[in-house]
Amino acid sequence: MTDLPDTNLVMVTLVKPEGELEVYFERRAMPTPKPHEVLVKVLATPINPSDLGLLFGGADMSTARAGERDGLPMLSADVPPPGMRAMSGRIGDALPIGNEGSGVVVAAGDSPEAQALVGKTVALLGGEMYAEYRCLPVQMVMELPDGTDPADGASCFVNPLTSQAFVETMRMEGHSAIVHTAAASNLGQMLVKICAKDGVPLVNIVRSEAQVKLLKDLGAEYVVNSCDEDFQAKLIEAITATEATLGFDAIGGGKLAGQILSAMEVAAVKRMKNYSRYGSDTMKQVYIYGALDLGPTILNRSFGLTWSLSGFLLTPFLQKAGPEVAARLRKRVVDELTTTFKSHYSHNISLTEALSLDVAQAYNAKRTGEKYLIRPHG
Amino acid sequence: MTDLPDTNLVMVTLVKPEGELEVYFERRAMPTPKPHEVLVKVLATPINPSDLGLLFGGADMSTARAGERDGLPMLSADVPPPGMRAMSGRIGDALPIGNEGSGVVVAAGDSPEAQALVGKTVALLGGEMYAEYRCLPVQMVMELPDGTDPADGASCFVNPLTSQAFVETMRMEGHSAIVHTAAASNLGQMLVKICAKDGVPLVNIVRSEAQVKLLKDLGAEYVVNSCDEDFQAKLIEAITATEATLGFDAIGGGKLAGQILSAMEVAAVKRMKNYSRYGSDTMKQVYIYGALDLGPTILNRSFGLTWSLSGFLLTPFLQKAGPEVAARLRKRVVDELTTTFKSHYSHNISLTEALSLDVAQAYNAKRTGEKYLIRPHG
Repeated sequence: MTDLPDTNLVMVTLVKPEGELEVYFERRAMPTPKPHEVLVKVLATPINPSDLGLLFGGADMSTARAGERDGLPMLSADVPPPGMRAMSGRIGDALPIGNEGSGVVVAAGDSPEAQALVGKTVALLGGEMYAEYRCLPVQMVMELPDGTDPADGASCFVNPLTSQAFVETMRMEGHSAIVHTAAASNLGQMLVKICAKDGVPLVNIVRSEAQVKLLKDLGAEYVVNSCDEDFQAKLIEAITATEATLGFDAIGGGKLAGQILSAMEVAAVKRMKNYSRYGSDTMKQVYIYGALDLGPTILNRSFGLTWSLSGFLLTPFLQKAGPEVAARLRKRVVDELTTTFKSHYSHNISLTEALSLDVAQAYNAKRTGEKYLIRPHG
Repeated sequence: MTDLPDTNLVMVTLVKPEGELEVYFERRAMPTPKPHEVLVKVLATPINPSDLGLLFGGADMSTARAGERDGLPMLSADVPPPGMRAMSGRIGDALPIGNEGSGVVVAAGDSPEAQALVGKTVALLGGEMYAEYRCLPVQMVMELPDGTDPADGASCFVNPLTSQAFVETMRMEGHSAIVHTAAASNLGQMLVKICAKDGVPLVNIVRSEAQVKLLKDLGAEYVVNSCDEDFQAKLIEAITATEATLGFDAIGGGKLAGQILSAMEVAAVKRMKNYSRYGSDTMKQVYIYGALDLGPTILNRSFGLTWSLSGFLLTPFLQKAGPEVAARLRKRVVDELTTTFKSHYSHNISLTEALSLDVAQAYNAKRTGEKYLIRPHG
C-alpha cells in the first residue's frame, strides 16, 4: 500500500446559516479499511438528478459564482428563504456527495470477504463517491466481471434498480402496462429494453422528435411526444391500446401527471359497461419519482375517484420488496450490464472540472440526452 | 294495498346530445314488489353533495332556467363541452336520483323477510330516492327502531358510513390521527363525535370563526381556520401535536391538500434524527373524497417523496373492508342514530320544490351548515 497518497480529495456541499451554499473540496486523510471494509480507487461516478438534489439543493443557481479554496475551484450560490427552510436539517454540515460509482479495490481489511476483493473491479453504493478514494463495508460493493470498463460499472444501482423497480411495482400492484415520462433518459432507455425483454407494454412520453426516433430505434412501440398538438389524443390512443394503469413521472411539476391519469380514465371508461357518476372503478396510479420541473403539480381532476398520485423512492421500495427481490434485481444488473443496463455519457469530466461554473451550469440543466461522468483519476 | 295510488312521481336527470341538461319528473306506474322486495313510502331523503354530482353534473348552473313539464316544475341548463365529455356515458339516459332516504314499508313481496318489514320504519340505500315511493330488495333496507323520526333515519348511510370509514382506514393503514377539511359539515360533526368516543386525535380544518365555535362546542380539541393569516403555522402546530399522517379532504381543488401534506412533513422532519435530502420517510396520505372546489388541485411538492394523494369513495372501501366490517359500521349507525350520527337539516322541502330554480341554486351552492331534506309527502 506504499503507492497510496496520504490524502484523499473529497467534494462537499455546505449550506451556511446566512443563506449561502458552498460546494468545495476537502483534503482528508486517506482512510484505513477496518476488517470488513475495502478501500476503492474511484474510477467513474455519474452525476444523477438525485445527486444534484443534494449538491445544489434549494440554492438559486442563477446566482452561482466561481471561487477558489486551497488552490482548487469552488462554487457559491445564494439560497432563498424557501430553500433554507427545506434544507434546515443540513445547515452547517459539510456533506460529501455522489450516490454511486465504480472503481478498483486497492486495499482491504483483514476479513476474508474484504481480502477476496483486492484488485477487483467493483460497483459502489453509499454516497461520498465524488472523491478520489472511498472506504466502504463489503456489503456496499458489488463485484463486477474482470475487465469491466469503469464507465459501464459506474451506474449499476440508481438507474438499473429503479427501472427494474418500476416493473416489479407493476407486478406487485396488479397492473399490466406502464406509462413513463422523460422516457429518453438513460433510465428510460433501460426501461424500454427491460419491458421489451419481459413483454411488458410501455407507453413512452418524450419531449422532442429526436427522442421519438431514439426510442423507436431502440425498439419502443409506443412513443408519444408531449410537444405535439394532438398529444392528449395520442396518449389516450396508446393507453387504450396497452391498458396501462400505472405511470412513473420524472418531471413532477406541471400538468403531465394529471394528463396521464385523465387518459387512463378515458381508456378505462371505454371498457366499462355501466355509467357511473364517480368515474371508472379501475385503479389508476401515477408515481412521481423525480423533479425535473420543480414547479407545482397541477391536477385537473377529470379522472373519477379511483386514483392515486404518490412519491416514489428506490430505497423504501427495496425495503418493502425484501432482500430476495433486491438480490434478484442486482444479479440482473451484473448479467446485463453492457446490454440492458448500458449507460451513455455525453461528457467525461474530472473531479475539479465538476466545480467549474460553466460545467456545473451545464449538467445542472438536466437536459435529456446529456449525462455527465466524473473520472477522478482521468 | 287499495290505498296506494296508481302512479309514482320520480325525479330524473337527462343529458341531451345537443348539450343541454334537463331535470324533471316522470309519473311512473306504481311498482309491485317481487318476493324479496319491499315497497317503501319515502318520507325523507337528503340532498348530499354526491347527489348533486349526478343531478346537475357538468352543467353550467349559472345558465339554469325554470320550466314546466306535465304541469310540474323542471330545470334546464347548458352543458359546456368539458361537461359533455365527462358525462358522455350518460347522454340520452333519463337517470333517477337520490342515494339514500327513509320511509315506511307499505307493501312487501311474499318472502318471510319481506313480509316481516311491513309497517316498519326503514333506512334505504340504492338510488332513486327522490320519488314518492321506492321498491327495493330487502338487503337494501335497514330496519330502524319503532318511532324513529324519518328525518333521523334519512341519512343513515352516506355520512355515517363515510365518517366511520375514515377511522377504519386510519387503523387499516397504520396511522394514528386524522386531518379533516370542511370539518363543520354534517359528516365532519359526526367525525368529531366518533373520534372523541374512540380517542382518535383529529385536526379539523374549517373556513370561518363561526365554524370554529361550532366544533369547539361539540368538544373538538384541534380546530384550525384556513382563513386565518397564520393558518399554515397553526396547522403545523396541530399536526405536530397529534402526529396526524392521514387526511381526508372534501374540497379537492386549490392548495389545501398540498398544505396538509407539507404540514405533515414539517412535523415528521422534526421527529427525524438524521437529515435526508429526500425528506422524511414517514408515509403521508391525503384522500380527496369530495369536490366542493371543482378547480385544479395544486401541489407545491415540499413534502419529500414519501406521500400519496388519492381519491376516496365509500363503496370500494366497503368492498375492500369486507362484509363483517360493513355490518359492524351499520350496527353502530343504528345504535347511535340520534347521538353520534344525528344529522341537522336547515331546510325541509317538498319533491317539487326541489326543482324550483331559487331552491335548486341555494342547495347547489353547497354551503357548510346548510343541508336540505326532501319530504316527498310533506
